[in-house]
Amino acid sequence: MFDELETPAVLVDLDVATRNILRYQNYCNEHGLTLRPHIKTHKTPEFARQQVMAGAVGITCQKISEARVMAEAGLDDILITYNIVGASKLAKLRALSNQVRLSVTADSLFVIDGLSDSFEDSPEPLSVLVECDTGALRCGVTEPSDAITLAQAVERAAGLSFGGLMTYPAVGGTQNVQSWMTEALALCKEAGLDCPLVSSGGSPDMWTAHHAPVVTEYRVGTYIYNDRSLVEAGVCSWQDCALTVLATVVSTPAPDRAVIDAGSKILTSDLLGLEGHGHLLGRDDLSVRSLSEEHGCITATEGATGLAVGERMRIVPNHCCVVSNMVDRILLHRGDRLEGDRKVAARGCVA
Amino acid sequence: MFDELETPAVLVDLDVATRNILRYQNYCNEHGLTLRPHIKTHKTPEFARQQVMAGAVGITCQKISEARVMAEAGLDDILITYNIVGASKLAKLRALSNQVRLSVTADSLFVIDGLSDSFEDSPEPLSVLVECDTGALRCGVTEPSDAITLAQAVERAAGLSFGGLMTYPAVGGTQNVQSWMTEALALCKEAGLDCPLVSSGGSPDMWTAHHAPVVTEYRVGTYIYNDRSLVEAGVCSWQDCALTVLATVVSTPAPDRAVIDAGSKILTSDLLGLEGHGHLLGRDDLSVRSLSEEHGCITATEGATGLAVGERMRIVPNHCCVVSNMVDRILLHRGDRLEGDRKVAARGCVA
Repeated sequence: MFDELETPAVLVDLDVATRNILRYQNYCNEHGLTLRPHIKTHKTPEFARQQVMAGAVGITCQKISEARVMAEAGLDDILITYNIVGASKLAKLRALSNQVRLSVTADSLFVIDGLSDSFEDSPEPLSVLVECDTGALRCGVTEPSDAITLAQAVERAAGLSFGGLMTYPAVGGTQNVQSWMTEALALCKEAGLDCPLVSSGGSPDMWTAHHAPVVTEYRVGTYIYNDRSLVEAGVCSWQDCALTVLATVVSTPAPDRAVIDAGSKILTSDLLGLEGHGHLLGRDDLSVRSLSEEHGCITATEGATGLAVGERMRIVPNHCCVVSNMVDRILLHRGDRLEGDRKVAARGCVA
Repeated sequence: MFDELETPAVLVDLDVATRNILRYQNYCNEHGLTLRPHIKTHKTPEFARQQVMAGAVGITCQKISEARVMAEAGLDDILITYNIVGASKLAKLRALSNQVRLSVTADSLFVIDGLSDSFEDSPEPLSVLVECDTGALRCGVTEPSDAITLAQAVERAAGLSFGGLMTYPAVGGTQNVQSWMTEALALCKEAGLDCPLVSSGGSPDMWTAHHAPVVTEYRVGTYIYNDRSLVEAGVCSWQDCALTVLATVVSTPAPDRAVIDAGSKILTSDLLGLEGHGHLLGRDDLSVRSLSEEHGCITATEGATGLAVGERMRIVPNHCCVVSNMVDRILLHRGDRLEGDRKVAARGCVA
């Protein structure tokens, strides 16, 4: 397949991506959830627009730089799920708020104070969601009572309005989200505070999102492409994986070993708890045992690999989001038909 | 330090990088080794030129796309240590050979045949080094006798000339290189074949390169920046690390945990056998326990982290080469003085 393409290359099957977008939008529609996809997976305005046209309420970004790329391309409802810290970023956030319907998260008074300093003279208040740690041990207040304290601080702060509660739960943490947020909402009510939104997310638990009915909005990124981590977790099948890495065998130094031209510079070193570095489509008997920057070393479960130099293979990476960030362009196809390429416009937006 | 900079950002101390370049050039001069630095670490023509001006015989690249960036910038002696496979790449290689003094490696008849097809009508033969596996289990023929067979095939092939033997040894493999190459050279002599060059490399063993006197040329990449993997291996000290990642604390959800804005999108997931994701300069008591794309979770060995939101830190990454590839620009400084920025011109050259 695609014998003329230089490898390694990142391929995205538009039919599969479209099917993934529609299928999960349908799920959210059925369960009364609003969907706010995370653009970190594809980093392209074209896919973001497709997600919104399918019914998404807006998009999620994690960086102002990503949000700016999306805003420039006409996406107009953006949640940045990140604590914005520092004068330069706060100034950019303020500028961006003139362009789009914007909301952010905060999990400390320090962050709220910074936002308020930047927005105190804003004609429209900035919507700030309080980030809650429901078990992932990353950002977020760990106690529901602290969430209410911060929500009240947001309401008091000049230029800000309380937008709701947000969490990025641990994998398998749907029930924790339900109990944590239920308690927090009760405290909100006690405090006479209106909580307009409860936002949760995560692709690994996307099909059980409705088991936390307290949640009103769901954020998913990986679902548009899917990857080996989600297949291995039973969330989807190999046929649902829209993103693959096309690689060429460049060396067969021994019968039981082969080397491909896809290394960590395209597959990345992300393991997500898995062994090996991606799944070789159609070759369950082979594994990508190790990576260096430009080489992937393939071994067979048993005996010879049967691979020859020049042979091409497609790999479903462990984690698709990070692969998108390694290339300037992705190649688009529908099955065996190549359909051009697309710039990964928000690639490399680190700040 | 650098309070106004947006984070995360990749900083490179020019004084430290220059010192590293000169120190290893001196080592090579003292030991009669020619030095051919690998540009994968910095991916910038400016540093490549500095390496050549310090005395390097030329540069090493792993991709034609990288070599083209360097050739455009005036670097004129390039070894591509990779099996070039595929019509499109072979055509680019041929075009590049008109521009610079070029050599490549090969470890199979398939690769040699492809090179010969592309260069058979070339006015100058392409120099092809035979890649030898002296223990790293990546590319390369595993037996010295096979190296001679391929060297003879290169000599017979139209448009090619045998450029020597090349190996990327396993860490700690200097003695293996010496015995493997000694045997191969004896076989060359037996076969009446002149071997103009024996090229080895690797930063972890850079200070013992002279323990394999059979080697005439040494390739190193990481030595210009150094990183945590080399400090932990005793190759250099923290003061020799030119590349650091500047990060900001964005959350302190619990006394014993803090979150910084440097995640795998800038530090990458490369572990290189280490625990944790980089070294926090001046804070030996803290470690970067886990990364997600935009978050780094910091814990203390014992008790509280003592970190506050807004605080800045500098991190020496586990592996500096892969960090260079994550950003469009690096920020240059000398100690506490910022000196502008530099485009990472060969970033993202995957094919």
